Amino acid sequence: MKIHHLGIAVNSIEKTLTVYRQLFPDLKAEREPLREGASMEMVMIKTESGPLLELMQPLHPDGDIGRFIAKRGEGIHHIAYETADIYAVCAQCREQGYRVLGEITRGAGGCDTFFIHPKDTCGVLTEFVSCAGEAQGK
Amino acid sequence: MKIHHLGIAVNSIEKTLTVYRQLFPDLKAEREPLREGASMEMVMIKTESGPLLELMQPLHPDGDIGRFIAKRGEGIHHIAYETADIYAVCAQCREQGYRVLGEITRGAGGCDTFFIHPKDTCGVLTEFVSCAGEAQGK
Repeated sequence: MKIHHLGIAVNSIEKTLTVYRQLFPDLKAEREPLREGASMEMVMIKTESGPLLELMQPLHPDGDIGRFIAKRGEGIHHIAYETADIYAVCAQCREQGYRVLGEITRGAGGCDTFFIHPKDTCGVLTEFVSCAGEAQGK
Repeated sequence: MKIHHLGIAVNSIEKTLTVYRQLFPDLKAEREPLREGASMEMVMIKTESGPLLELMQPLHPDGDIGRFIAKRGEGIHHIAYETADIYAVCAQCREQGYRVLGEITRGAGGCDTFFIHPKDTCGVLTEFVSCAGEAQGK
């Protein structure tokens, strides 16, 4: 198992970056291009150990992240794991009875991605991503 | 910045390991020795990308993890970052006005550790650990 990124829901990416830059002066952050119809802004922070931190700020309160923050407050939202063959993993998860949320979609950084319902993974919203040979946040 | 581990609060380590072994057949997990007076059991899962997953199961409902689950349900509890000089980092955090929870203590795996209040870090309970040259989950 290999962690690709950790998703963190925040009210303000700018405020969060200010805090993280105080704690980690060598911070490297990169803004994701805003996609049409997006419900959130995203910034990726690189870490030495490989996994990215994906900061997500809602653009409006009715999107997934807006509703998450309204219900639970800011905080860690999901763990994403890297996989080479996302279609095989997704099919296997369905066969094993895990509830896949929606379908495989093209996510941040051009990676294919799907989520498993957190109730099926002991409270942790779990994402699988496949980035097909391109930069994977290393 | 380098992630050392992710803390995950669960009702049952055994049930969680069953789920994770289905999703990740190559899973490598190691139980932490139970310490006297501990309020939780812990199992460390190794990942390829370096960070460990620290599964924490409450031994009684009044400990930190028992209360966390009672309030928020199972889920991701904290992010821990590795640092070479934990005393310097802790002093700097205090100087910068971050609320350090308690003092530096000897945590899982014999690492020194302290936590910052999640309200000071945009909702994420943040831990720093220093493992002084020994195995750091790689």
